[in-house]
Amino acid sequence: MTTYFYTPPDRVHGDRLTLPPDEALHAFRVVRRRTGDEIVVVDGAGGWYRVVIDGIDAHQVAGRIVERREEVGEPAFRLRVGMALLKQEKRFSHFLEKATELGVSEVIPLVTARTEKQSIRPARVEHVLQAAMKQCLRSRVVSTAEPRSLVECLSGVGAELLLVCHEASDAASDALLDVIARAGTPPALTVLVGPEGGFTDDEVARLTAAGARAVSLGERRLRAETAAIAVCAGIMLHYQRHIPSTP
Amino acid sequence: MTTYFYTPPDRVHGDRLTLPPDEALHAFRVVRRRTGDEIVVVDGAGGWYRVVIDGIDAHQVAGRIVERREEVGEPAFRLRVGMALLKQEKRFSHFLEKATELGVSEVIPLVTARTEKQSIRPARVEHVLQAAMKQCLRSRVVSTAEPRSLVECLSGVGAELLLVCHEASDAASDALLDVIARAGTPPALTVLVGPEGGFTDDEVARLTAAGARAVSLGERRLRAETAAIAVCAGIMLHYQRHIPSTP
Repeated sequence: MTTYFYTPPDRVHGDRLTLPPDEALHAFRVVRRRTGDEIVVVDGAGGWYRVVIDGIDAHQVAGRIVERREEVGEPAFRLRVGMALLKQEKRFSHFLEKATELGVSEVIPLVTARTEKQSIRPARVEHVLQAAMKQCLRSRVVSTAEPRSLVECLSGVGAELLLVCHEASDAASDALLDVIARAGTPPALTVLVGPEGGFTDDEVARLTAAGARAVSLGERRLRAETAAIAVCAGIMLHYQRHIPSTP
Repeated sequence: MTTYFYTPPDRVHGDRLTLPPDEALHAFRVVRRRTGDEIVVVDGAGGWYRVVIDGIDAHQVAGRIVERREEVGEPAFRLRVGMALLKQEKRFSHFLEKATELGVSEVIPLVTARTEKQSIRPARVEHVLQAAMKQCLRSRVVSTAEPRSLVECLSGVGAELLLVCHEASDAASDALLDVIARAGTPPALTVLVGPEGGFTDDEVARLTAAGARAVSLGERRLRAETAAIAVCAGIMLHYQRHIPSTP
């Protein structure tokens, strides 16, 4: 199974590019690429390059671009997920990996009333997102940011469809697929997912007052990251039928 | 957040039940339940009991059943997943947890042409499935079995809808939600998910000859367990609109 390599945009110059040291080491030692081999490199900003290697050792890889494309593997809709920080960092990281595979554009780490953890290791997040991008053959890395409050997150939401995942016992929640089917084809969605204990009633009231639609994800109690993965999967599978991705 | 306790059916006698030692220890030491407290106990076979504790220490818990229900948290459809064993056991375990939350009835571990691992630790599987059942408030534990071949798995499939997840590049794959929408409301579905390298072309040909419908899960390359989680989420979210669970 081929996996993409990553290089930042500033290592692309005309018809040539180089790989950063960690990617060069991986290419040389682990997957054993050599001069004359072809690799695919993505720049995390939508750039996709087919490259013939003309210089390689454990420290550096240089090559000639023989084909370039844009936005490979990127969905035609824009899905932002405001995801509360979780007690177990590995569960949050797991969500970041799945979010990348399912076509999420941006993850906004949230600090809510019931969030116990307040911070996140940026280097860890970046590593997980970059590895997932290469593995699932996307050309854009999921963008992320410092943890924000719900109010700060809402201030960045425009006219798009805003959804909040809320437990099914509340009769005011509609089924996710009904809500997005009725909304037609919005160019952008934002989905908010609470921490282990969920959003408080007060938070849900404030969110719905701000225009958010409460959606239910079925009858069982889902873990926070399961809810987030399920909602991303549902949205991806819904729009798959209506808006094809860039092939 | 309340979590259920587990006891096997043979510890329920008339209007009384006891908890097994590990559950008793957890009840006494971790969540600090005492005589007179109410707990909810499930038996993994669809039995649900509200119980008033009348004897508790670190070794045993006994109580009186004050309410009993059946099939709490169980979906009205039956979803079996034939899931290839994965190189990393933690990724397979992670799928088992998510499968429980998403309402799967049975997971059949598969050994396929590209499966590298051939075995699974039954005690580990049982632990993960039981913990997930209690956490997501189901009353049935996901059933599972020894790893089987595709042929053995197919022999257990009756007239139900049989789906095989297959990479989107193949034009013969239809979008998951289209396939299940066209199928109406089947009482039972079986979904097959391959290992890291996917099913071989030969396996897909044999499966489709046996009546399996190839379904696509979008344009990105999903990890095996992501594909399995996404397909379970899509099916659960689809039937959520059509068949309510037991409340």
